[in-house]
Amino acid sequence: MDILIINGPNLNLLGKREPAVYGSTDFEDYLNGLREKFPGDRLEYYQSNVEGEIINALHEADGRYGGVVINAGGYTHTSVAIRDAIGAIGTPVVEVHISSILSREEFRHESLIAPKCIGSIMGFGLDSYRLGILALKK
Amino acid sequence: MDILIINGPNLNLLGKREPAVYGSTDFEDYLNGLREKFPGDRLEYYQSNVEGEIINALHEADGRYGGVVINAGGYTHTSVAIRDAIGAIGTPVVEVHISSILSREEFRHESLIAPKCIGSIMGFGLDSYRLGILALKK
Amino acid sequence: MDILIINGPNLNLLGKREPAVYGSTDFEDYLNGLREKFPGDRLEYYQSNVEGEIINALHEADGRYGGVVINAGGYTHTSVAIRDAIGAIGTPVVEVHISSILSREEFRHESLIAPKCIGSIMGFGLDSYRLGILALKK
Amino acid sequence: MDILIINGPNLNLLGKREPAVYGSTDFEDYLNGLREKFPGDRLEYYQSNVEGEIINALHEADGRYGGVVINAGGYTHTSVAIRDAIGAIGTPVVEVHISSILSREEFRHESLIAPKCIGSIMGFGLDSYRLGILALKK
Amino acid sequence: MDILIINGPNLNLLGKREPAVYGSTDFEDYLNGLREKFPGDRLEYYQSNVEGEIINALHEADGRYGGVVINAGGYTHTSVAIRDAIGAIGTPVVEVHISSILSREEFRHESLIAPKCIGSIMGFGLDSYRLGILALKK
Amino acid sequence: MDILIINGPNLNLLGKREPAVYGSTDFEDYLNGLREKFPGDRLEYYQSNVEGEIINALHEADGRYGGVVINAGGYTHTSVAIRDAIGAIGTPVVEVHISSILSREEFRHESLIAPKCIGSIMGFGLDSYRLGILALKK
Amino acid sequence: MDILIINGPNLNLLGKREPAVYGSTDFEDYLNGLREKFPGDRLEYYQSNVEGEIINALHEADGRYGGVVINAGGYTHTSVAIRDAIGAIGTPVVEVHISSILSREEFRHESLIAPKCIGSIMGFGLDSYRLGILALKK
Amino acid sequence: MDILIINGPNLNLLGKREPAVYGSTDFEDYLNGLREKFPGDRLEYYQSNVEGEIINALHEADGRYGGVVINAGGYTHTSVAIRDAIGAIGTPVVEVHISSILSREEFRHESLIAPKCIGSIMGFGLDSYRLGILALKK
Amino acid sequence: MDILIINGPNLNLLGKREPAVYGSTDFEDYLNGLREKFPGDRLEYYQSNVEGEIINALHEADGRYGGVVINAGGYTHTSVAIRDAIGAIGTPVVEVHISSILSREEFRHESLIAPKCIGSIMGFGLDSYRLGILALKK
Amino acid sequence: MDILIINGPNLNLLGKREPAVYGSTDFEDYLNGLREKFPGDRLEYYQSNVEGEIINALHEADGRYGGVVINAGGYTHTSVAIRDAIGAIGTPVVEVHISSILSREEFRHESLIAPKCIGSIMGFGLDSYRLGILALKK
Amino acid sequence: MDILIINGPNLNLLGKREPAVYGSTDFEDYLNGLREKFPGDRLEYYQSNVEGEIINALHEADGRYGGVVINAGGYTHTSVAIRDAIGAIGTPVVEVHISSILSREEFRHESLIAPKCIGSIMGFGLDSYRLGILALKK
Amino acid sequence: MDILIINGPNLNLLGKREPAVYGSTDFEDYLNGLREKFPGDRLEYYQSNVEGEIINALHEADGRYGGVVINAGGYTHTSVAIRDAIGAIGTPVVEVHISSILSREEFRHESLIAPKCIGSIMGFGLDSYRLGILALKK
Repeated sequence: MDILIINGPNLNLLGKREPAVYGSTDFEDYLNGLREKFPGDRLEYYQSNVEGEIINALHEADGRYGGVVINAGGYTHTSVAIRDAIGAIGTPVVEVHISSILSREEFRHESLIAPKCIGSIMGFGLDSYRLGILALKK
Repeated sequence: MDILIINGPNLNLLGKREPAVYGSTDFEDYLNGLREKFPGDRLEYYQSNVEGEIINALHEADGRYGGVVINAGGYTHTSVAIRDAIGAIGTPVVEVHISSILSREEFRHESLIAPKCIGSIMGFGLDSYRLGILALKK
Repeated sequence: MDILIINGPNLNLLGKREPAVYGSTDFEDYLNGLREKFPGDRLEYYQSNVEGEIINALHEADGRYGGVVINAGGYTHTSVAIRDAIGAIGTPVVEVHISSILSREEFRHESLIAPKCIGSIMGFGLDSYRLGILALKK
Repeated sequence: MDILIINGPNLNLLGKREPAVYGSTDFEDYLNGLREKFPGDRLEYYQSNVEGEIINALHEADGRYGGVVINAGGYTHTSVAIRDAIGAIGTPVVEVHISSILSREEFRHESLIAPKCIGSIMGFGLDSYRLGILALKK
Repeated sequence: MDILIINGPNLNLLGKREPAVYGSTDFEDYLNGLREKFPGDRLEYYQSNVEGEIINALHEADGRYGGVVINAGGYTHTSVAIRDAIGAIGTPVVEVHISSILSREEFRHESLIAPKCIGSIMGFGLDSYRLGILALKK
Repeated sequence: MDILIINGPNLNLLGKREPAVYGSTDFEDYLNGLREKFPGDRLEYYQSNVEGEIINALHEADGRYGGVVINAGGYTHTSVAIRDAIGAIGTPVVEVHISSILSREEFRHESLIAPKCIGSIMGFGLDSYRLGILALKK
Repeated sequence: MDILIINGPNLNLLGKREPAVYGSTDFEDYLNGLREKFPGDRLEYYQSNVEGEIINALHEADGRYGGVVINAGGYTHTSVAIRDAIGAIGTPVVEVHISSILSREEFRHESLIAPKCIGSIMGFGLDSYRLGILALKK
Repeated sequence: MDILIINGPNLNLLGKREPAVYGSTDFEDYLNGLREKFPGDRLEYYQSNVEGEIINALHEADGRYGGVVINAGGYTHTSVAIRDAIGAIGTPVVEVHISSILSREEFRHESLIAPKCIGSIMGFGLDSYRLGILALKK
Repeated sequence: MDILIINGPNLNLLGKREPAVYGSTDFEDYLNGLREKFPGDRLEYYQSNVEGEIINALHEADGRYGGVVINAGGYTHTSVAIRDAIGAIGTPVVEVHISSILSREEFRHESLIAPKCIGSIMGFGLDSYRLGILALKK
Repeated sequence: MDILIINGPNLNLLGKREPAVYGSTDFEDYLNGLREKFPGDRLEYYQSNVEGEIINALHEADGRYGGVVINAGGYTHTSVAIRDAIGAIGTPVVEVHISSILSREEFRHESLIAPKCIGSIMGFGLDSYRLGILALKK
Repeated sequence: MDILIINGPNLNLLGKREPAVYGSTDFEDYLNGLREKFPGDRLEYYQSNVEGEIINALHEADGRYGGVVINAGGYTHTSVAIRDAIGAIGTPVVEVHISSILSREEFRHESLIAPKCIGSIMGFGLDSYRLGILALKK
Repeated sequence: MDILIINGPNLNLLGKREPAVYGSTDFEDYLNGLREKFPGDRLEYYQSNVEGEIINALHEADGRYGGVVINAGGYTHTSVAIRDAIGAIGTPVVEVHISSILSREEFRHESLIAPKCIGSIMGFGLDSYRLGILALKK
């Protein structure tokens, strides 16, 4: 199965900054380990800090991937446009978060994109991505 | 009269996706028909999924067009920055929407950009664009 | 096409009062000019300050007109009953406003009737009526 | 027992419009059947789309009827004035609704008149009127 | 000075109903006493339970009276249309209430018409009307 | 017809406590009178102060009764779980209340279960139960 | 009649500052004119910018004056303590405001003290004080 | 690894009711399949409709299981007490939901228990349970 | 004096869990010390995690005890039913909390039961129970 | 132990005004009785209607008393400054109220100072002070 | 340039209390250092815990100083009266805060006085005062 | 000291548009004057209308500059992503605004980025930037 993992704003800093919150693993390293766990699947990765480029990536994923795992970072709570992009494409999308958004500041409790995703997984650290892939493969 | 039509996020998918909501007409096709209806005017078209590029387009339109017809899509409800851009330029801007934002989800009821536009037209499908041009030409 | 224009409360004062907000044109005069612009159509006009009489007019318009252009004035923001009347009849209704309700006081931002109209046009002065007729004729 | 049934805005359309919501029975027909069920009572009927006329009817009912069954339609949620009228008269008033206002749009959840009525019955279709009469006769 | 006193919904019941709240004086009787207190002025009186007729009365008062004293009753809290009517006419309008709206139910705390009146007087029983006239004559 | 009457928390105290609010009739006595009024029907009665046991009773009623009359007491305003139970069973359920919940404290105005019931009857004292049965039998 | 006029914070600046809002009359001068209009009454005056001193003045007024006219200025909207003081004394208190608090910023719309006063007069400039005295003398 | 699966109110009806929302699989059947997928682990199951019994089960699980997978059903949104129970025990708890609570009614958007769980998984149908176990085993 | 102490959900874990918040004293041990301090009184103790059983205990306490000291735990903020139970019985009830509910999460700030108790004591650790008994004995 | 009792605005009127709410005991008399109950302790008393003087008293109490019992009256709900003063000093402070603030008007439900006090006692009449001293002495 | 620095409630404790929040420098010491940095200017200092005395100080500063630097402490969020005082005087006022009010509790996020100041500086510790003076001198 | 000044959306128009609000100075000109005032420091400048590019600039500034002065324009009120970026880097960031955001429209009152900045300076026109640099250099 071809799966695209999309990371939103500031997730390029994973493993470099705020290890207390986000852990100390670099995402590229984590991705290599993840690929080994899913040898029969193709896992591609895209990261951008630009809301519109994430929308572009979602549009382009349509029909090219069997599923998308997205961590939209801070845009999760503010982007009607990414929500609309997920709703507009046919590829199933799974929302993941490293920490539980429901345990953090009040303004992070709402996910604008969740209603357009097939499901949400949050709070398991980087393992949320692995669970997201398992959910898609089902 | 020179008029710039700006389409915001996901509107590049018009006619390809969710025909039940947005109709099955491709926007480029619609634009050709529109140009035929306004033979004496120049209708230019710009689409971007990036909030900041829409701001750039508005800045550049200032002084170069007699008016702008904008469908800011999902940014309509979240972008203070596009609101400020419309307020900062001298060119009159008309806001259009394909469906009526007041009939959809609660978070779409507010338009941050409407107070800076000369007027708003919503709910008439793609015909909202034609009405927007007619409003500008008046 | 037979079209009924309904004006709600205080719109009988158009052209007489508050020209800074509503312009200095008398609505009857404007209507004459409008009829000249649509020689093949019949434009009828009804104005009342009474909420229930506007409901009566909407009921009576059902099946007798091809469309209704309504400016419900202050009832736009408070009348569940007019909303229900528009929803109950089969004739398509277009909502118009002279100024943009989204640019005025907070309590004018919500339109109770918009979700039952086929579309809304606001902010273009009296020209909103002409655009409303054009929208209906489409 | 002399009972006045008051129907508010748009209820003159019952049986003619939106049968999916309000049923397909004409209210006059229903009333005839109802009168047969209560042969010893006098059931009078008043309908108006005008808020103030409903207030007038309530004032006039005072002392002339043993009870009032009212379906205030859309005014249920917006009319402080009808609430005050019910509170001002001595005749007991029962509030009825064809559908359950608590199952519809958020703005229909509150009944301004309920606190001034002796009770409320909602959701049983036209049978709500029969139950309202039974409640009054008790 | 010619002054029009406008009473809104249910105020025709003054002196007949709920004396604990509104006093036991009939308004017509009170009015006769009031006229004796202002022998050099003409005090006219209009009462209606219909929102739109109050708007009509305000329109007609424009230019014919030196001032209006209005007790809009329950419409005080719900009528954008009466607010707009007061704002549209040139005659100064004073808002009066028999009881203090700020001491009653929460939904009576806001007055939609106050911002368009030159001032508000509330809580002094029927004497609020006399004070309203004194305020106008100043 | 087989009908199950379910009473929620504190309703076992009916007739014993707070007669000013709930009347002085013991519910068992009332039930005996009620059974005499419906000689052809079987009226069964269940009361519990435990939210989950009310859910159990609703589950068990499914398919065994022609209808349920429920007064969920304080759980009316707080129990998503009872709401879900009513929505999950096929037996029609009528909501009744002795006093009008819309006339009491603000936090009692909302009924979480009403949208899943076929209708609601409130404010008629114990007679609300009789009306509820009549509504079901229709 | 002995009447105490209490002015709250910043009202010592009347006539000196912001004449566009508060007029250009010095309050002491105005007071002299007022005393001439009420030759048979004793009008005493107290001003303080300190919330607690206004409470002290209210306590001391109890039993010593026939009535109090208070303009609590900015404390009108924030002081539960002054509200309690007015409620605790037996002397009737009339609330006055130079401008209409309902026409100004949102946070000035609520008066915490109004429910404890016998009435409120606002919007008539300094004439509000004269009307307040007339209301008390009634 | 010893894992306790706790199902809250109405989940005993899974597969029997509302298959459009919850699917047509009986939970016991699903559980058998699940046990086959985790042959080296012990999966125990507890279901109750009673909030307090779920609290008891959580208390008893403390120290006896390596982890808990909980679907608290309707109590997810209302139970401070279950939240406190999860926070009080040392065993890690994973929250699962069959459908996405963020896509359903507004009152289901908040999860009171999420901040006390190590993570949340929602929207994947019954597969949410399998993912919950995988998350715990990590 | 006969006094019943009722502890709500999770308070059976006192002294075993979260000593940072609730202290390290086992409630049974604390109770023994408490009984020694009140040798002339009978202190009985009931704990349940089930909302409805707490209601049952309150009903049974009526007439059998001179007073009740209740710590309703998480049900303090969500249970209209326990509130109603306290309001329905004649025995005076004192509300106690180990920590101050006003210093914790926002959703713990409101106590639904406080208005039905004769008083509330919170924040003094286990000593709140001793103070509650002292308050009752007064 | 040296204890300072601080009473806020209007509490100097205790026993003189509104006995139905606050009882008929003069606070000085009550204080004498209180001192007899605590013969080994020094109870000092300070009352002011001025918010800032209460802050001064709290500052001066720091290091001079073993504890403070404060009834901040109306400032309880509005004073961030008194909250900060309590938070800034090292002396433990107990909040007391004669009536239960949670049973009165909505705007009295929140206590701004509670989160900075070691505990709160409310609703026991003047006995709340005695309980507050007992809490401090513990 | 003559500049008045006004410190509001609890700021007299600076350097003595809560050094973690406010630093360990005594304000008088800091002021001496500040005066050395501005040898050509006169820096006067006023501190009060009484809201009304701060208003008095602002009134007296009018025309006597070239500018005011104010840290209104807890009154920042609650005092309409200080806001009005700043708006009433002609001297420019700069608002400063030691910590960032936007980073602290929710109720500190709003500054009632900011809209009447020429600018606001917050979060730089005591250096905020120096920056405030620099802003005024510009 | 090396300092990066970041300007957000529409600030490229400074000096060209809306001089009444933002002044008539071009930012490049202002920057030249600023560099002369800080001859020993290196001031670099970056402007973008794209939210994600501002995030990129913040990431790149980390470790390369001693501090950042940011005016995030309209993104101040809507961007959780920029907030996270500031929180993720180690370089201290000062927030500046030309006008006071607390004096403008309601939706501009909240700054999402302020809690992650070391401090905020607003309202001093372009001089806010100079003060921001002075704050950083301290």
